[in-house]
Amino acid sequence: MNRRIVIVGGVAGGMSAATRLRRLDEDADIVVLERSGNVSFANCGLPYHVGGVIERRSSLLLQTPESLRTRFGLDVRVRHEVVGIDAAARTVEVRDLDDDTTYVLGYDELVLSPGARPVRPPLPGIERALSLRDVEDADALVAAVAGAHTAVVVGGGFIGIELAENLVHRGIRVALVEATPQVMAPLDPELASLVHDRLKASGVDLRLGSAVASIGSDDVTLADGSVLPADLVVAAIGVRPESGLAKAAGLRIGERGGILVDDRFATSDPHIHAVGDAVEKSDALDGQPALVPLAQTANLQGRLVADAIMGRPVRGRGVLGTAVVGVFGLQVAATGWNEKRLRGAGRSYRVIHTHPADHAGYYPGAVQMALKLLVDPATDRILGAQGVGEAGVDKRIDVIATAMANDVPASGLAELELAYAPQFASAKDPVNMLGWVASDMRDGLVETIQWHEVADAVAAGATVLDVRTEKEHRDESIPGSVLIPLDELRGRLGEVPSGEVVVHCAVGLRGYLATRILEQRRGEGSWTRVRNLDGGMKTWLAGQYAESPSRP
Amino acid sequence: MNRRIVIVGGVAGGMSAATRLRRLDEDADIVVLERSGNVSFANCGLPYHVGGVIERRSSLLLQTPESLRTRFGLDVRVRHEVVGIDAAARTVEVRDLDDDTTYVLGYDELVLSPGARPVRPPLPGIERALSLRDVEDADALVAAVAGAHTAVVVGGGFIGIELAENLVHRGIRVALVEATPQVMAPLDPELASLVHDRLKASGVDLRLGSAVASIGSDDVTLADGSVLPADLVVAAIGVRPESGLAKAAGLRIGERGGILVDDRFATSDPHIHAVGDAVEKSDALDGQPALVPLAQTANLQGRLVADAIMGRPVRGRGVLGTAVVGVFGLQVAATGWNEKRLRGAGRSYRVIHTHPADHAGYYPGAVQMALKLLVDPATDRILGAQGVGEAGVDKRIDVIATAMANDVPASGLAELELAYAPQFASAKDPVNMLGWVASDMRDGLVETIQWHEVADAVAAGATVLDVRTEKEHRDESIPGSVLIPLDELRGRLGEVPSGEVVVHCAVGLRGYLATRILEQRRGEGSWTRVRNLDGGMKTWLAGQYAESPSRP
Ligand SMILES: Cc1cc2nc3c(=O)[nH]c(=O)nc-3n(C[C@H](O)[C@H](O)[C@H](O)COP(=O)(O)OP(=O)(O)OC[C@H]3O[C@@H](n4cnc5c(N)ncnc54)[C@H](O)[C@@H]3O)c2cc1C
Ligand SMILES: Cc1cc2nc3c(=O)[nH]c(=O)nc-3n(C[C@H](O)[C@H](O)[C@H](O)COP(=O)(O)OP(=O)(O)OC[C@H]3O[C@@H](n4cnc5c(N)ncnc54)[C@H](O)[C@@H]3O)c2cc1C
Ligand SMILES: CC(C)(COP(=O)(O)OP(=O)(O)OC[C@H]1O[C@@H](n2cnc3c(N)ncnc32)[C@H](O)[C@@H]1OP(=O)(O)O)[C@@H](O)C(=O)NCCC(=O)NCCS
Ligand SMILES: CC(C)(COP(=O)(O)OP(=O)(O)OC[C@H]1O[C@@H](n2cnc3c(N)ncnc32)[C@H](O)[C@@H]1OP(=O)(O)O)[C@@H](O)C(=O)NCCC(=O)NCCS
Repeated sequence: MNRRIVIVGGVAGGMSAATRLRRLDEDADIVVLERSGNVSFANCGLPYHVGGVIERRSSLLLQTPESLRTRFGLDVRVRHEVVGIDAAARTVEVRDLDDDTTYVLGYDELVLSPGARPVRPPLPGIERALSLRDVEDADALVAAVAGAHTAVVVGGGFIGIELAENLVHRGIRVALVEATPQVMAPLDPELASLVHDRLKASGVDLRLGSAVASIGSDDVTLADGSVLPADLVVAAIGVRPESGLAKAAGLRIGERGGILVDDRFATSDPHIHAVGDAVEKSDALDGQPALVPLAQTANLQGRLVADAIMGRPVRGRGVLGTAVVGVFGLQVAATGWNEKRLRGAGRSYRVIHTHPADHAGYYPGAVQMALKLLVDPATDRILGAQGVGEAGVDKRIDVIATAMANDVPASGLAELELAYAPQFASAKDPVNMLGWVASDMRDGLVETIQWHEVADAVAAGATVLDVRTEKEHRDESIPGSVLIPLDELRGRLGEVPSGEVVVHCAVGLRGYLATRILEQRRGEGSWTRVRNLDGGMKTWLAGQYAESPSRP
Repeated sequence: MNRRIVIVGGVAGGMSAATRLRRLDEDADIVVLERSGNVSFANCGLPYHVGGVIERRSSLLLQTPESLRTRFGLDVRVRHEVVGIDAAARTVEVRDLDDDTTYVLGYDELVLSPGARPVRPPLPGIERALSLRDVEDADALVAAVAGAHTAVVVGGGFIGIELAENLVHRGIRVALVEATPQVMAPLDPELASLVHDRLKASGVDLRLGSAVASIGSDDVTLADGSVLPADLVVAAIGVRPESGLAKAAGLRIGERGGILVDDRFATSDPHIHAVGDAVEKSDALDGQPALVPLAQTANLQGRLVADAIMGRPVRGRGVLGTAVVGVFGLQVAATGWNEKRLRGAGRSYRVIHTHPADHAGYYPGAVQMALKLLVDPATDRILGAQGVGEAGVDKRIDVIATAMANDVPASGLAELELAYAPQFASAKDPVNMLGWVASDMRDGLVETIQWHEVADAVAAGATVLDVRTEKEHRDESIPGSVLIPLDELRGRLGEVPSGEVVVHCAVGLRGYLATRILEQRRGEGSWTRVRNLDGGMKTWLAGQYAESPSRP
């Protein structure tokens, strides 16, 4: 008899495993069991179908049980839920959800790719809140949207934000309620604040640092007592690994609640394998367990587990968690660790903020982005990167993620040979520029100060020296700052404040040039330590808004 | 007295060196000598100014001698040409082009960044042909465009193509004459043919494999006797390193005509340094001398030579020649070696063609690109990549270039963790997909055949098996091919032709699936060797057009 491989979950990880298994073995008996009514659907497209951007529901269904039988000879059973695993007997118990019968199915190898399920907080009225995970959920949302004028989205993660945008796109008045002071946890606050601006400018009623107290029949009450109209409520406060089945079967579960697997995706039972959102990954930076519920990783692991089962060489790698999301025309992307996490872990790091244009400024249509790079000061290793902007952010984060995964040091970014023509990039690409700034810091050519350190420095006696133009200074300036435009600095060294000086400009470039002058002319005045405000006024302002989210 | 550093050429390499030198040394006496009337101009923007896309001439001038004096304390002298170098005396002879006087200027260190000059073939009437290199050239072209209705651009390289597009944009009827059978030498013919299609569809009268015989007062005569109307003629048949001055000074010149430098950019004279288009680089793949006249490299080298002069650690790297150009809405990009060059060098290689979408197909607006990857079969090393498409090509080539420069093997592309959301990429990114195909070939899961090998295989007795649908087969097919749609293949194994089989589909994916079935079912029929047509019908067709450029 042919070897039977049973797969639980027929979407990203599960179906990628199934098709690869077939390519490797025409003879295997491959059964895919899927609880929902569909397989191989585009989870990541669901919010856009709700918003009407992806018009046809059928676009979301990349394959059907029939097409998978025809093309891959797979036995795909939708609305069949695995309700138990007998690891010793190598069987699963399956419930046919249509006729509510159960049966037992034997396997030689079992693959679990059950994904993750939306967290549903135990709030009064939570039953009314919809979640978005599969096609049925999307159908329910589409139906609910039809009659709705107002909506509250609870949770400012990737999915919550995508939903907010898509509901606005449907003409619905949307409030987004987020319990922490910022949306999008992978971003640090001063970058998240750019996303906040965009959400508000797009008409979203953004409620940061707000907890939901209860959900009423047509409204939502927040902990501060305010009441938001809500024909529709969506809960999008994160996902948890769907590891209940594995746990009940006695498989080892990790400290973060995901199924534990080795680097060949075997669980604690050698004939049971697991991949995707349900498993704990190993963090690329510190090797610690990590939950990274992303499609690319699930798909990759699906293919790898097929190879492992077929006895081919396989070795899962640590994950960076590279991700991107669109927010009302903004690209928001990140890879690796952020500053919050580095600080929390007590690691030392350098921070670099830049605001380059996506392509040459002299060519029409260039737009500015905000980039942030985190660097290990001891080793020059890249620890993480984030970007927010209307164009070109995805490219830079992909390049940096590629560099990170292959141990390119931060200063090595300067030497990457990237394609340049004025429509597409700059002759000194934003990625190269991060590398130069990193090397200047490594070499001690400049010392920088972060936006959140300025107030303390000033309190301790430092003076802020603005080296922008008089007009820029007049338009908006850091309170108490002294103006000497960069182009006059060499002639006005006598006016440079004494003691510690924080130099700043708009984005950090002129400030760097001024810092270099002051460093080299130290004997000619009474200034002592000179630090350049990293990211300039732009980052400082974004930081101010981040710290007091109620500001406009 | 302060150390004097004299720089010849005040644009990409030269001015990047000058500003970095100033950042490192406030005291140095830095003199920049520039023959043309401008410094720090955007060479790469010149074609777009000619086309009116970059409307204002001033946008091209990133800095002026005055702004550079004010900001960087540089002594910048435009219309000052260096006409001689006395290396022993450490002086240059300078001609002031305005009053035609000369003077001698001493230096402690000399930096040459004189760039490259357009090749001007010795054709009858060549005096009338304009070239494009500096702002004065652009001014002359703008003036000439004003009265012109017809133009002939000679040369189908990056600049020739950009000029053709921009002249069309000005409403001029443009013929592009290229002596070789294809435009854009960095591309292989089957990718170049996509560019040909776009040029023709955009109204360019494309004359491939055509030599210019002579240039008349209002026309151009080709070697085949045809006469093209030409109010305007532009010569853009490539550039040569501007190494005459260096040669006359007795500096070592390389076999390719560029100035020879070591990996700290010193010439054969230790006080004379050189960077940019004028120098020979070392090829990243084989370490051989290479001419790579690109802005990013010139800028990078400019910064590195400043560091070298200041005694800082510097080590120039080999170059890949990563480049991109826009062609009437297409992005055309490449890095590393192409197949022509690998074949010419007698190196063995594997070829992979794919046709992925720039982002998820289920999200609106996805467009297909053509990608080509070249791999060393012995080591799995990436040798080069090319791409043509309307979106997302620049990103993929940048990621691959980053991987190449850091010795990521071809199959390692599969594991790069790239950012995915449906607007920006696919969960299996095109770069990942290239990695998978490369690993399948490495592992012997599939044997492929190239578009240009099919005819010979058929002549030797192979049968072409089309596994697309009946409709696709009817619309356009490879002559003599037999149809068995993939989804019927398992049931119709008895109909598979005997002997050698070339399987094909539209892009290679279904062909790969069919190949896997036939490989595993070999005993069940009389077929022998099975090969998948790499890149499918799309690449095969592009190849046919490339071989007979006169086809529509
Ligand atoms: C709305 C939304 C948007 C997203 N957007 C993005 C994005 O832009 N980029 C990105 O990288 N990722 C995105 N993701 C995440 C991505 O979809 C997941 O990381 C990926 O699908 C995980 O793959 P998986 O195979 O682990 O789980 P899933 O794809 O979720 O598949 C698991 C399947 O298993 C089934 N199942 C569970 N338990 C059982 C059982 N006991 N018996 C039978 N079947 C069972 C479930 O019904 C489910 O269909 C998004 C997810 C959602 C929900
Ligand atoms: C029209 C055009 C489009 C281009 N597009 C792109 C593109 O999209 N992407 C890309 O990567 N590259 C592009 N390039 C190439 C890029 O501009 C060059 O690689 C880069 O400018 C080389 O820098 P460089 O410093 O070596 O020489 P240049 O920037 O050319 O500067 C050399 C300068 O030296 C001066 N000079 C020469 N001899 C003397 C002398 N004896 N005395 C005084 N001065 C002297 C010249 O007048 C010239 O201004 C383009 C070039 C052109 C002309
Ligand atoms: C649709 C689905 C079944 C496809 O799985 P798949 O067959 O592994 O993926 P693809 O169709 O992209 O094919 C990839 C295979 O074709 C090969 N291939 C791709 N392009 C090729 C080409 N041009 N020439 C030759 N082979 C090619 C790849 O190497 C790979 O084969 P391998 O794994 O044996 O190396 C699965 O991805 C799925 O269910 N997806 C939907 C769910 C999902 O991903 N959700 C989250 C994101 S929204
Ligand atoms: C305009 C020109 C003089 C600028 O040269 P430059 O000063 O080296 O370049 P930039 O203005 O981009 O500044 C780069 C410097 O600022 C630093 N920098 C950039 N952004 C920064 C930021 N946000 N914070 C701190 N420092 C920053 C970089 O590290 C670098 O300094 P370093 O080299 O000492 O490390 C020169 O590029 C030029 O002449 N260009 C036009 C010609 C040309 O390039 N043509 C071909 C392409 S069209």
